[in-house]
Amino acid sequence: MSSYCWGWGFYGLCQNCVSPPISATELCQFVQTARLGSMGGILKKVLLYGLLGAAVFTVGMLLGHFGIQKGGESSPEWLRDVSRDVDESLIERFIAEVDNTQIRENLRELTSTPHMATTEGDERTVQYMLKRWQDPDTGLDDAWREEYKVYLSFPNKNTPNKVTVVSPTSEVLFTAREKEKVYEPDQSHPDVVQPYAAYAPAGHPKGKLVYANQGKVSDYEFLNATMNLAGTIAIVRYGGAGRAAKAINAAPFGVIGVLVYTDPMDINDGVMSDVNETYPHSWYMPPSGVERGSFNTHFGDLRTPYLAAKEHTYRIPEADITGLPPIPTQPIGFEDAYTLICELDGPAAPSDWHGAFNCTYNVGGPGFKATSRFNNGDVNLDIYNKGELKNSSNVMGIIRGSVEPDRYIIYGNHRDSWVNGAIDPSSGTSVMLEITRVLGKMVKEGKWRPRRSIIFGSWGAEEFGLIGSTEYTEEYYSKLRDRTVAYINVDISVFANATLRVQGSPAAQSVVFSATKQVKTPGSNPTSVYDNWIRFFNRTSPAHGVVPNVAFLTGAGSDYAAFIHFLGITSMDIAYTYDRSKTKARIYPAYHTAYDTFNYSAQYIDPGFTSHQTVARTAGNVLLRLADSLLVPFSSTDYAESLEQYLSTALQNFNDRLAQKGISMEPLKNAVTKFRTAATSLEKLIQESDLANETPLKVRRINDQLMLLERAFLDPLAFPDKFGYRHVIWASKSSSVATFPGLADAFAHAQKTDLRQDWDQVYRHLSIVTQAIEGAAHSLEEVI
Amino acid sequence: MSSYCWGWGFYGLCQNCVSPPISATELCQFVQTARLGSMGGILKKVLLYGLLGAAVFTVGMLLGHFGIQKGGESSPEWLRDVSRDVDESLIERFIAEVDNTQIRENLRELTSTPHMATTEGDERTVQYMLKRWQDPDTGLDDAWREEYKVYLSFPNKNTPNKVTVVSPTSEVLFTAREKEKVYEPDQSHPDVVQPYAAYAPAGHPKGKLVYANQGKVSDYEFLNATMNLAGTIAIVRYGGAGRAAKAINAAPFGVIGVLVYTDPMDINDGVMSDVNETYPHSWYMPPSGVERGSFNTHFGDLRTPYLAAKEHTYRIPEADITGLPPIPTQPIGFEDAYTLICELDGPAAPSDWHGAFNCTYNVGGPGFKATSRFNNGDVNLDIYNKGELKNSSNVMGIIRGSVEPDRYIIYGNHRDSWVNGAIDPSSGTSVMLEITRVLGKMVKEGKWRPRRSIIFGSWGAEEFGLIGSTEYTEEYYSKLRDRTVAYINVDISVFANATLRVQGSPAAQSVVFSATKQVKTPGSNPTSVYDNWIRFFNRTSPAHGVVPNVAFLTGAGSDYAAFIHFLGITSMDIAYTYDRSKTKARIYPAYHTAYDTFNYSAQYIDPGFTSHQTVARTAGNVLLRLADSLLVPFSSTDYAESLEQYLSTALQNFNDRLAQKGISMEPLKNAVTKFRTAATSLEKLIQESDLANETPLKVRRINDQLMLLERAFLDPLAFPDKFGYRHVIWASKSSSVATFPGLADAFAHAQKTDLRQDWDQVYRHLSIVTQAIEGAAHSLEEVI
Repeated sequence: MSSYCWGWGFYGLCQNCVSPPISATELCQFVQTARLGSMGGILKKVLLYGLLGAAVFTVGMLLGHFGIQKGGESSPEWLRDVSRDVDESLIERFIAEVDNTQIRENLRELTSTPHMATTEGDERTVQYMLKRWQDPDTGLDDAWREEYKVYLSFPNKNTPNKVTVVSPTSEVLFTAREKEKVYEPDQSHPDVVQPYAAYAPAGHPKGKLVYANQGKVSDYEFLNATMNLAGTIAIVRYGGAGRAAKAINAAPFGVIGVLVYTDPMDINDGVMSDVNETYPHSWYMPPSGVERGSFNTHFGDLRTPYLAAKEHTYRIPEADITGLPPIPTQPIGFEDAYTLICELDGPAAPSDWHGAFNCTYNVGGPGFKATSRFNNGDVNLDIYNKGELKNSSNVMGIIRGSVEPDRYIIYGNHRDSWVNGAIDPSSGTSVMLEITRVLGKMVKEGKWRPRRSIIFGSWGAEEFGLIGSTEYTEEYYSKLRDRTVAYINVDISVFANATLRVQGSPAAQSVVFSATKQVKTPGSNPTSVYDNWIRFFNRTSPAHGVVPNVAFLTGAGSDYAAFIHFLGITSMDIAYTYDRSKTKARIYPAYHTAYDTFNYSAQYIDPGFTSHQTVARTAGNVLLRLADSLLVPFSSTDYAESLEQYLSTALQNFNDRLAQKGISMEPLKNAVTKFRTAATSLEKLIQESDLANETPLKVRRINDQLMLLERAFLDPLAFPDKFGYRHVIWASKSSSVATFPGLADAFAHAQKTDLRQDWDQVYRHLSIVTQAIEGAAHSLEEVI
Repeated sequence: MSSYCWGWGFYGLCQNCVSPPISATELCQFVQTARLGSMGGILKKVLLYGLLGAAVFTVGMLLGHFGIQKGGESSPEWLRDVSRDVDESLIERFIAEVDNTQIRENLRELTSTPHMATTEGDERTVQYMLKRWQDPDTGLDDAWREEYKVYLSFPNKNTPNKVTVVSPTSEVLFTAREKEKVYEPDQSHPDVVQPYAAYAPAGHPKGKLVYANQGKVSDYEFLNATMNLAGTIAIVRYGGAGRAAKAINAAPFGVIGVLVYTDPMDINDGVMSDVNETYPHSWYMPPSGVERGSFNTHFGDLRTPYLAAKEHTYRIPEADITGLPPIPTQPIGFEDAYTLICELDGPAAPSDWHGAFNCTYNVGGPGFKATSRFNNGDVNLDIYNKGELKNSSNVMGIIRGSVEPDRYIIYGNHRDSWVNGAIDPSSGTSVMLEITRVLGKMVKEGKWRPRRSIIFGSWGAEEFGLIGSTEYTEEYYSKLRDRTVAYINVDISVFANATLRVQGSPAAQSVVFSATKQVKTPGSNPTSVYDNWIRFFNRTSPAHGVVPNVAFLTGAGSDYAAFIHFLGITSMDIAYTYDRSKTKARIYPAYHTAYDTFNYSAQYIDPGFTSHQTVARTAGNVLLRLADSLLVPFSSTDYAESLEQYLSTALQNFNDRLAQKGISMEPLKNAVTKFRTAATSLEKLIQESDLANETPLKVRRINDQLMLLERAFLDPLAFPDKFGYRHVIWASKSSSVATFPGLADAFAHAQKTDLRQDWDQVYRHLSIVTQAIEGAAHSLEEVI
């Protein structure tokens, strides 16, 4: 990048050329040539002397300008590079080159076999990623694998988990399906794993069945008020509570086993029949479809908390792992759930517990109706899940930055699926591969190199609890913490083809807006992704008016979790999703089933793969802006707006009650005000600066402030019981009040107990979040 | 800094001038003048044309060089500034200007009254610091105070603590002195605080006296083997165990009160008499002298752990504070201790328990000899200490950096003393004030501005547990963590005038060596501080041969604690100290007594104040190098050497036993090797670079690696029970094995219990330190 000419602007000749400036030798040749002509007469003399004088003057001037080295050396070659900003025409080229058919073929390759973490299919995808990223024409600068030895949980292939109804005489009255029904060859692949609840313990509980709605604490409390739950098996719907929580909540009431199913009301808009309604007739889940999943509370490898799970790393005993189901648990299809629930005895469940079955949802006697063929029958679970240490790989690839190689933009997605995973996660991986193909080609052809380094991560074992990405952040904590500008996550890239949906830190809102204004929607009536998005998700910003709503990144739904919560890196998660007026499905109906296949995606999710293409263009555009912008495109005033929103919600919900308890919210108010003031003055400094022409250390200084802003909200001791949650603004919470999580949860708890020590904890969390916001404000202020 | 000329190096004319380059107008005047002369004849014509041609050429050339703006603008003015390195002649000027009489007068002013934290005397020193740092001619760019509301502990002025011996009939047989004897007016100042044990609880224990040596666990265990300690009062010597530990260790054995004294053997080289031996006849502690102190285990404000103690901050209840003496405790002079110990009954204590008293150290009956005038007497403590929330101030001052204002060098010392504090801490403060006077003057005169910002901190309430500095690090955690290059602590600047003594991170060893080679020792036979130092403290470095020994910064003896242990900032503590062949005193004998006065210092510690001057020159030199060097003067290979030393000690002490337990130390060995490799390659990169002429972002990148190296060793969860200790290499430890602290302590514990779970903890700490060292290695590797 160093041979670009610079400094010609004065002549208005060569603002953006790539030729080197005219050399001293060339100038001398020019002057010698000028002296060759023969001349006579005064006029000629005058002309000659004039010309000569002019030539001599010019030679002197040009020599002075170019020939004489400043400070004893050449004018530094790096000067132009360090001040170069993002190149809009390059982004346009990128957008043009992103190809939907390439994405389709990526997906076909990635989904040709099941690729659950650490299986042969997973290894196949590792090899494929490496091949692509090491390609000499379209690959990255470098790519490699990194292995961790992680704690996973599998059913026993030889002794499958079994759910039966048995009579008092041990006669088997009913057996739930072991595997999902085959509609296409994909479902009959020998590597399709039996539906199971990963990390739920093995065991053989047998007891009367009860229907416990969604398995929330309140659901069990409700049942417990009128019946003895001791020794029962609970059947619950997905939704309302986390997977592990359904069993964790149950056990204290004496429940000894849990069945989970997906009610057609929650996933299929009520549709149930595979004769003509469900897949392969539509995108809806067939009756035998089962959502698999990881039944754990904490993310990361469960036996090496805060330590990267290397071969040699200390592992806590399995018995010391917290947050797992204490009782055997098994997911089943709604076909089987229907059979069981419709036979239940006891009073009818409350109306909001009802799903789409055409029978009354009774809560259970406990157990079945006397009139049922299951009368007096017990439900029996035979669960053979087992924890195993397995080697899981991340595949990493990099493009080195030219000007600031020590600043990273990380773009990632997991690679492992439950079965074929065409949507989860391969829709994201096929998009990532298309982005790397286009960027890799530009790099290999010498047409472009980003200002900052770009790191691509293809994470392993996400489905078991975001393990690959979390171990990566543990292993490289310090350097990632100090150098990473942003993390972009594109897991499921296309849930549906209606609109963009972004979750992310408010700091990144503006760069997402810039990118989405530049990318067009697919289809025959293209508009900007931004204009389409704002129709589906919007809010009124005090600063910007009506804008698309970037949702807060408060959960741990995908690999962004360790980046935002543990490392405090400005993160975002990007996807295309539903028109909520057209479906109420919790998520696309093939989610975590054996029906999440290439054909399913090509037929029902994104025929033509143009929504995939749109996500690739959008996410790639964001990536390029983050990597190439002279000024890191983050806004601290947008962050201030979100803090003000949280504050206002907190004041509204807590202030009066806290005042009664003698706890003042003034310090928190003042902290948010300080943050706003600091953000405004930083923004002013940026606007008043001529960053391209001032010392590169000034833009670096401001960029460091912007990069490290998110880090200022970390407090490693704020949530001692929640693994990896250190971000006091975005940490997970139980309370439904959309505000500072530690405060909201402590308040909810104190409201319940009304104990002095619990109000003290509210006060403590107020101080924690106040200090974090003030610390962040300090980091935005004038640096000294 | 922008009007300095640059680029003249080619002509060899103006390497360091401050005049602007010759202007285009001046050149034109020069040419016009040259054309004025009258001429005739060919020669003249030739000459004329030749001259004119030359002049025109020159004008062109100069205009080209200076007049034509590159890239449409002036050649960037910042170019020379960003590559400027430390100016050795400026350091020489600094050294020359540091004045011993100024230091003496600073000290006189600072010590004119007692200035215990938060008292009137403390406020006087706050005002003095502000006056000095805000001085228009010799002050800093800015100075201000920052207040924290902190939890301190004081005796009751109206009801002084009392130690008596009472007979069974409650007759008072003996009363210990309430205050130290007056030898000079300083001791009779009404603000001299009664000797007491800060944070020891109030109470009135009465019991038989036992002599418990140094109050270590092993001391009480020894006594407990032959007597019932329940209900006794223990008298113990200072030394061997921390202040609070003496009572914390005692309580589980049933001891109900503790007296602490300083044995003349430990402080006075055995000398006892104030008739002709102790102060004012020498530097030795008079018989009534009492070492005050803070009897706590953790540093920082005890009621706001990890939160800055602002007015509004949540405070834990007093009852929840850990690490304080559970039983009343009081320090007394050795005069009184002599009276008590020499009357003790029971068998003679082991010989290594004996001090300098000319009687047998019996352990106590418990209680006194039957032949004693105290026969059957009890020792009675009446302790009225009380915790109080008080406003304590730090005084902060800054010099803004010119090129990298967002990089900080912090230099600090506490301001509060127990009484007059001429040595502790005012010897350090008077040195700091002399450094700021010389630097402030250079700044105010426009002669100098550092590359990086310098922050000076005059900390409050250090004596109560490093409170001011710790609250500061809590309040500004993020920005200090991200921007601070180094912390220099000069608390007691002169313990004695024999030699320099430095504790610090190995990263900083080389810059201390550079500075000490340049500064001369005081006295008639000056040599370099380095050459003198190496005679007293040295070691053989595999890389450098015999070098002065920079001790590791493993404790929390002064305000560096929060910087190195909590923030992970490369820190150092600098002082002049003893010739150990001349005294065995634990510390200078007036330490924490009312005799630590200006006269004491001027007479016995540093007459002429030339050792103070030497420390000011040395510390100031280090400060200037840190602030002005283009490349941060840290060495990662020196760090590697220390890790290798720790590793070798660990292998020697633990490897065989751990192998028996199936725990491998190979991963730790590999981590240290990786660190060494990364450090060597970083050093090579530095050596092969032409940092002054490459992009400023390259030197910034390497400087960030050097600055942040120390941070990579932080693990906020490694030592959950030790407040503020997050640095896995330098954290405090109980084990005497000089190696990785978590590993050493876990090993010692497991050796004792031999329980599997305790060996697991050894393994866990091995993994923690391995991961930290590997993380640090990653941070030193090529950045991408």
